Amino acid sequence: MALDIEGNFSAPVRRIRLTVAYDGTNYHGFQFQTNGVTIQSCLEDALFQLLGQRVRVIGASRTDTGVHALGNVAVFDTVSRMDAEKFSYALNRWLPEDIRIQKAEEVDPEWHPRKRVSRKTYEYRIYRGEFPMPLRRFYSYFTYRPLDVERMRRGAAYLVGEHDFYSFCQEPSRAQSTVRTLYLVELEEQGPELVIRVQGNGFLYHMVRILAGTLMEVGQGKREPESIREMLSARDRNAAGPTAPACGLTLVGYEFPEDPCGNRNGN
Amino acid sequence: MALDIEGNFSAPVRRIRLTVAYDGTNYHGFQFQTNGVTIQSCLEDALFQLLGQRVRVIGASRTDTGVHALGNVAVFDTVSRMDAEKFSYALNRWLPEDIRIQKAEEVDPEWHPRKRVSRKTYEYRIYRGEFPMPLRRFYSYFTYRPLDVERMRRGAAYLVGEHDFYSFCQEPSRAQSTVRTLYLVELEEQGPELVIRVQGNGFLYHMVRILAGTLMEVGQGKREPESIREMLSARDRNAAGPTAPACGLTLVGYEFPEDPCGNRNGN
Repeated sequence: MALDIEGNFSAPVRRIRLTVAYDGTNYHGFQFQTNGVTIQSCLEDALFQLLGQRVRVIGASRTDTGVHALGNVAVFDTVSRMDAEKFSYALNRWLPEDIRIQKAEEVDPEWHPRKRVSRKTYEYRIYRGEFPMPLRRFYSYFTYRPLDVERMRRGAAYLVGEHDFYSFCQEPSRAQSTVRTLYLVELEEQGPELVIRVQGNGFLYHMVRILAGTLMEVGQGKREPESIREMLSARDRNAAGPTAPACGLTLVGYEFPEDPCGNRNGN
Repeated sequence: MALDIEGNFSAPVRRIRLTVAYDGTNYHGFQFQTNGVTIQSCLEDALFQLLGQRVRVIGASRTDTGVHALGNVAVFDTVSRMDAEKFSYALNRWLPEDIRIQKAEEVDPEWHPRKRVSRKTYEYRIYRGEFPMPLRRFYSYFTYRPLDVERMRRGAAYLVGEHDFYSFCQEPSRAQSTVRTLYLVELEEQGPELVIRVQGNGFLYHMVRILAGTLMEVGQGKREPESIREMLSARDRNAAGPTAPACGLTLVGYEFPEDPCGNRNGN
């Protein structure tokens, strides 16, 4: 406790970082919307139940409607003196069962999830079969079309590195720069499921879903693997493939490699 | 077409075998119930939409409320001359998206799914973590308790072979004999998920869930692996562990090894 400017006792403001997993099926994405329930509104409601006052939550990723997360990151400020790690247990009691805090930790009050250098990993899952598999219907995009995974891998290789991803962005005007770096674009077969895993320093609007839709067309033989190079240089959304459906997309998580001191509790 | 006993043209009755996958979350099990929607009632409704008449569906497994299937088996009889394999596409158009026919094939009219020698495989999935994972909440039982998988494997070894599983049956009076043979009881770690996979010639009421509940207590150190031998000889439900929740259980599928001619279309 400290004395504030008027001489009253005031607790210092602390910033708490949450790692949040959610099933996005029933939500209008992460970010607050006037016309639907979002992950952010659920987190703020749970914090209101817990703390008795409304606090603003800032998310690292504004995932779209129907997109899932194993580890999105969000912060809020509070004067509560509760042990940081106890926020996960306490908030989970107030959250619906399709949202679960995985970790809570105190960070520097200046730490901002969208202003930090980070590596972010997404997975796009494709269920391949003659018929859809009900248990995977919300988490994997179904296709009965054969996919040549080796062709897709050859196409994916052109995406790795620093590129202007203008052609792979739904509304490029939203972003100041459309240059991003992808560290990894790998395809892993898990039985009938094909996982496209991408890691990068940032992603443009719908970028992973357009990459997935384009690679699926490469896998179907509709496009050549080498054509990805021309798509990148075209700087034209129409040069790339379709936007794959949201259900197949999961935000796996973040690394903040250049931020060893931002986390007061250690990682 | 053939002439029937009154000299009218009549199509021969054919028996169609379906392999059915479903998400059991929203169903009162497979078997028809007066007080809830079941997989059987959905299949019969879809057949009514397709054929214009009510036909009875006979399932191989009466899975419980909340239990899933990748490959339950069911048969129905029809005079329709539709190509057998087309029933899968046609029925899927009338079924809700949490039920999907995976295969349809013509079998001998005498072929009965519960009167055939078969091998049946179940998986019981346990999600291990400090907090539940929303994407797995309907398909995997969550526990924060540490499980010693090697202890569980040692316990599981006592279950393999022909045994009287009376102690692992919820209502033993239902079954004439409580002797069953398990060909396989294996534990596989898939990241945070632990899969208990069992294959046998038949399973008693709640048997897999009681096996799973018992093995989890072995893994928690509450019971010794060797105690499973005494549980089997006790012939007493109270000797075994608790019944694990339905959500973790999935009927993977059937093999009918002694029935090569039962399937007219080949497998």
